[in-house]
Amino acid sequence: MQYKAVKLVKRPGLNITPDLFETVTLETPDLEEGQFLLKQTHMSLDPAMKGWMTDDRNSYIPPVELGEIMRSSGVAEVVESKHEGFAVGDRVVGMIGWTEYAVSDGQGLNKLPPGISAEAVLCVLSLPGLTAYQGLMEIGRPKAGETLVVSGAAGSVGSMVGQLAKAEGLTVVGTAGTDDKCRWLEDELGFDKAINYKSDDLAGQIREAAPQGVDLYFENTGGPVQHIVFDHMNAHGRIMVCGMIADYNTDKPSPGPNWINIIKRRLTITGFTMPDHWNEVPAMMQKLAVYLAEGKLKYRAHKLEGLESAIEGINLLFTGGNTGKLMVVL
Amino acid sequence: MQYKAVKLVKRPGLNITPDLFETVTLETPDLEEGQFLLKQTHMSLDPAMKGWMTDDRNSYIPPVELGEIMRSSGVAEVVESKHEGFAVGDRVVGMIGWTEYAVSDGQGLNKLPPGISAEAVLCVLSLPGLTAYQGLMEIGRPKAGETLVVSGAAGSVGSMVGQLAKAEGLTVVGTAGTDDKCRWLEDELGFDKAINYKSDDLAGQIREAAPQGVDLYFENTGGPVQHIVFDHMNAHGRIMVCGMIADYNTDKPSPGPNWINIIKRRLTITGFTMPDHWNEVPAMMQKLAVYLAEGKLKYRAHKLEGLESAIEGINLLFTGGNTGKLMVVL
Repeated sequence: MQYKAVKLVKRPGLNITPDLFETVTLETPDLEEGQFLLKQTHMSLDPAMKGWMTDDRNSYIPPVELGEIMRSSGVAEVVESKHEGFAVGDRVVGMIGWTEYAVSDGQGLNKLPPGISAEAVLCVLSLPGLTAYQGLMEIGRPKAGETLVVSGAAGSVGSMVGQLAKAEGLTVVGTAGTDDKCRWLEDELGFDKAINYKSDDLAGQIREAAPQGVDLYFENTGGPVQHIVFDHMNAHGRIMVCGMIADYNTDKPSPGPNWINIIKRRLTITGFTMPDHWNEVPAMMQKLAVYLAEGKLKYRAHKLEGLESAIEGINLLFTGGNTGKLMVVL
Repeated sequence: MQYKAVKLVKRPGLNITPDLFETVTLETPDLEEGQFLLKQTHMSLDPAMKGWMTDDRNSYIPPVELGEIMRSSGVAEVVESKHEGFAVGDRVVGMIGWTEYAVSDGQGLNKLPPGISAEAVLCVLSLPGLTAYQGLMEIGRPKAGETLVVSGAAGSVGSMVGQLAKAEGLTVVGTAGTDDKCRWLEDELGFDKAINYKSDDLAGQIREAAPQGVDLYFENTGGPVQHIVFDHMNAHGRIMVCGMIADYNTDKPSPGPNWINIIKRRLTITGFTMPDHWNEVPAMMQKLAVYLAEGKLKYRAHKLEGLESAIEGINLLFTGGNTGKLMVVL
């Protein structure tokens, strides 16, 4: 059977352009013992992909090789199987790539329980939810009554961070790039305050929303919010650095804050990425499933249609054009 | 009996100037039950004093009030006592202040064992050694075989950090401001490499001295070393931020590095000050005493003579003019 896949054929410069990719038509192979065939139904698009395309020896995981199918996580259904552990009809989540079909031996895949939608999986139980959980709960160690600021709050990670923090009894302030997103954060997700970072007097608004100062800052964006929140951190504050999306598409990364306040306020700043924590993923998924079942984690999916829509669509992540977790429905 | 003390009467601007201080002549009071009289013999001068003079609500300890005797640690001898636990002839270390004599009830003082010099106490068993131990050992958690860079390496803290790291089996690179200091670090203290930060091609020299990259950076200075080492950190590197002496005497603190590498290399940056760790001091002193007894911690004292020499002499800390731990012999 023929299917389509998208390969990375060129490394990105400042922007992700269509010429970086090549769509190919492949033939599903005959399965060997211990293999099964997956039909992907939902493919996740994430900001981290820009890094995966880039050949940086210091990056946290090896880049996608040129000529390889582009890397991504997704939800898929087993449609043919010579593997004892995976039956036709089973659904899985894992790093499947920009492809309609894939052959697997099960490595790196997690089976999904019935009754959970693919959207919920990609929004909560995969990269965004796991990243939010790891950064906020494991690194930030939030305590009820503390104040959290999260930048990129309407993004797939930020929206989970804010909701987890609310569930833990924190005061939650988010920043986002449109008034619509801010309304969604306050009205639907229960943020105490959402601030449009493009509006006037950003510093004054952040200070007003966090009159006791900021104990936890979950950084997704960089940019002006970083400097304002940094100056407003409380003693023993924790900063979790997860994303710097404002700087991904520039060749002149903006300077960070001077370090004197790191001493004066005894701050801890921790960068993290999920590949260091794959072992902990099954346990985290179970914990996230509980929040989800209790109705504490809402989400919205921004769905593109068809494999090749990813090629242009991925840029929505960098322009802020997506409303909700970006994914491709296949 | 009359004695001299120095009060803080004005808050500093960019620089510490003589008009901030006033020397007063006081009379030793009659002792009450539970009190004793101390004659200070050695008074420590430390970079942290600039912060103690400044009224910054965000600072880690309350400032010295105007009209109060300036704060400092020192070694003193009990010369008169109505306290059961302190006999005439006992020696103590603690926050005694810029004064020749002081009355105490023992609070906050640690008694010294016989046979240890006042220089060793102020260089190793008080603020510099404790700060080095806390930052390197408790926060940095060094592992044999790793590479450490310490800025301000010839300073009172930096020289202890480098020697502790050598004792733990690390490769140790230090930066300092003169060739003389660099020679002392390499020849006397056993640093693997010491680099004059004012010399040409600082970045190239640091990279050459740490060919495997940097696992631990102990930050005492800020300035150009910070940016170069930051760019050369290994994955899972730890940065302990202890001092930013390059920025203490400026009203335009220099920007810090962009945060993207904090994510890519999963760095942890931790600011700390000793007042958060007073409880742990007795245990740390015991551990430092072992290194000292084993001859693993060398030190040199830069001695000024007479109480009032502190008024001008403190600036040696900010010009880099001191060679060794700065102290006043009374």
